[in-house]
Amino acid sequence: MELTRAKGTEDFPPEKKILREEIVATLKKVFERYGFNPLETPILERYSTLSAKYAGGAEILKETFKLQDQGERELGLRYDLTVPLARFIAMNPQIGFPFKRYQIEKVFRDGPITKARIREFWQCDVDVVGTKNLLADAEIIQLALDALKELSLNGTVKVNNRKLLNEIITYAGITASPEDIIVTIDKLYKIGKKEVEKELEEKGLTEEQRKLIMSMISITGSNKEKQEKLKKKLPKSQGLQEIQEVLQYCKGDVEFDITLARGLSYYTGTVFEIVLKDKSLGCSLGGGGRYDNMIGGFANRGEIPAVGISFGLEPIFTVLESLGKAKKTTTQIYIIPINTLKQSIDLAQKLRSQGLNVDLDLNGRNISKNLNYANKNEIPYVIFLGDVEVKMKKVKFRNMKTGKEQLLDGEVIKQ
Amino acid sequence: MELTRAKGTEDFPPEKKILREEIVATLKKVFERYGFNPLETPILERYSTLSAKYAGGAEILKETFKLQDQGERELGLRYDLTVPLARFIAMNPQIGFPFKRYQIEKVFRDGPITKARIREFWQCDVDVVGTKNLLADAEIIQLALDALKELSLNGTVKVNNRKLLNEIITYAGITASPEDIIVTIDKLYKIGKKEVEKELEEKGLTEEQRKLIMSMISITGSNKEKQEKLKKKLPKSQGLQEIQEVLQYCKGDVEFDITLARGLSYYTGTVFEIVLKDKSLGCSLGGGGRYDNMIGGFANRGEIPAVGISFGLEPIFTVLESLGKAKKTTTQIYIIPINTLKQSIDLAQKLRSQGLNVDLDLNGRNISKNLNYANKNEIPYVIFLGDVEVKMKKVKFRNMKTGKEQLLDGEVIKQ
Repeated sequence: MELTRAKGTEDFPPEKKILREEIVATLKKVFERYGFNPLETPILERYSTLSAKYAGGAEILKETFKLQDQGERELGLRYDLTVPLARFIAMNPQIGFPFKRYQIEKVFRDGPITKARIREFWQCDVDVVGTKNLLADAEIIQLALDALKELSLNGTVKVNNRKLLNEIITYAGITASPEDIIVTIDKLYKIGKKEVEKELEEKGLTEEQRKLIMSMISITGSNKEKQEKLKKKLPKSQGLQEIQEVLQYCKGDVEFDITLARGLSYYTGTVFEIVLKDKSLGCSLGGGGRYDNMIGGFANRGEIPAVGISFGLEPIFTVLESLGKAKKTTTQIYIIPINTLKQSIDLAQKLRSQGLNVDLDLNGRNISKNLNYANKNEIPYVIFLGDVEVKMKKVKFRNMKTGKEQLLDGEVIKQ
Repeated sequence: MELTRAKGTEDFPPEKKILREEIVATLKKVFERYGFNPLETPILERYSTLSAKYAGGAEILKETFKLQDQGERELGLRYDLTVPLARFIAMNPQIGFPFKRYQIEKVFRDGPITKARIREFWQCDVDVVGTKNLLADAEIIQLALDALKELSLNGTVKVNNRKLLNEIITYAGITASPEDIIVTIDKLYKIGKKEVEKELEEKGLTEEQRKLIMSMISITGSNKEKQEKLKKKLPKSQGLQEIQEVLQYCKGDVEFDITLARGLSYYTGTVFEIVLKDKSLGCSLGGGGRYDNMIGGFANRGEIPAVGISFGLEPIFTVLESLGKAKKTTTQIYIIPINTLKQSIDLAQKLRSQGLNVDLDLNGRNISKNLNYANKNEIPYVIFLGDVEVKMKKVKFRNMKTGKEQLLDGEVIKQ
């Protein structure tokens, strides 16, 4: 029998999963600090929900795993956590707004596989539903900055506004679909000015239009300077006004980036992206924005404004793993009984009751094999418990990194 | 458009999910205390893995969600966490034994739905792979007892041994499949002695055979007394000897239950079940046992002994929820700005930096609407911040339960 995993899926053994759990715990802590509460929705959704008008659209449906239950109902594995949130809001009209929830769960995409893209992966989403107040946008930016800090990552949050992008396009006299132009502008950092201009030409923009667009998206300076320069050209811009309000609530490393668009077309205002200062990762750690039409459209209940951000567990894990943050075990102490099985079990139980993570030899191996086991599993401390130690009511305690050994009192270990 | 969930699935809003997360965190803590480390495997598995000879068997395959990826590979949603563990062990021959892992993840069963049985649910599994030492069985029993304690549940672990059951059946001179008889014995507590005897008769047992079986499984007394009474009839019983060794390592509320079998036929030795003293739940909180053949058979690598336990998140949640342990929010403080938006944002950030979970009014509502919001969401404390307070460098702090208000120093809140 061929034993393989499903294509595009991965196992995460302890040396990966421990770090992943630590990242999730950190995000959870930060999310709750900002007043968000957890929601869980099923992985299985009705296909009609996933393919609804205000859901993810045709491109994403191509990558949706489809299946049937025994009753031949059409189901799919969810491809994001936003559509399930919209479905949840629609089905629970009693929920008071603003509804602030986070959700850290798996999503599925049956698409092409790259190193950074697998078919079953975690998303960590935070959304505020039911307020147009731009303070909510700012709170999410602050939350993202705090998350970076708590993860010991040196990053920044880039911010822009979809309305501003539309206004720039209108100002340039372009009548084609703004979405189409925005997709190209969004690539500036990836492909450079020259290629962007070429693509704009291919999309039918005149030289004058291209010049105007390029001059505006190339504006440099501090956040304040960029706002002032744009204000001169677009004095009545609502997008600019919104950016100004959001930035005024924010503290910390936030960068106004006029080219930022974020792929999904459902964004209606603020958009943001979490990036590292060190560009070597080559992708963002997450992003999001304001989407005031989607949930209301889904629920068929008028406008239900919302703003949210999604952290990718995979890129955050990749960075932290490359920084040497992974570890092989959560076990702190490994006990090697030397003809003292009964006392060793008692000692293990005692240390555990003090909150320590303790393992002990289950196979009656000799000392050197036991030390190999502790070494291989990178357990930081080993206790040898022999007759002599039992008589003295002591334990021999070994720091596996330094090799230093100490005779300690049973109680002393608590430290 | 009809907006419903997939049949047999559930949403868990904060008032359910917070408690569920607390249960998971408690189990995780206890698992790690006993030297177990986390493993994650995919939800999607090859169908050939799920339907392999040593996997779950025909009954469970009927309830397996089947699907294809774009490359038309046959896949399924895993129905348990043991088959993926076996697949993982088989694919990673470099792993040293004993391998102690835990896994807290979702599994799927496309079966009939009852209140206690949904189609997408969590399992919390702990397994030791690669040791025949019965100390491992005892460690898992102790872990289960500790989990009960940490969850503040008054329960016990029932223990038995499959070999003992087989020996009893052989002793009674029954030549039919022991599995078939064991299934009936297992029902003793559910259906009573009379019904068990009736079923045994239907399965072709003679009166003498039935009497013998009934007399042995009806043995009463303390664990010690039961062992002694059985020993007289089965002086050479290996099952009894194993029970004796396991019990000798254990401390706490463990009950030797001669009728306990646990459904799955892959168990080969010790079996156990976690039950509450209060029988009103009507089902166990989890269970497991030793299965020395399955993983090795799967990996085609000779015998790879293993022992494990699975906690059901759903029954534990049901019990704790009925005990009033659920809560609606993790937010501790809600700030109501009274014309002090800027200062309120600063205060929120300051309290958050102290590790507190803080929310603030995002909608510019009046005081009474804000108090309603805090009340509805059961946020324990509210801070009013008006001009007067800002000038005095104080905050008005209200305990929402008692209604008591205090003027506090910004710093004081830290307590």
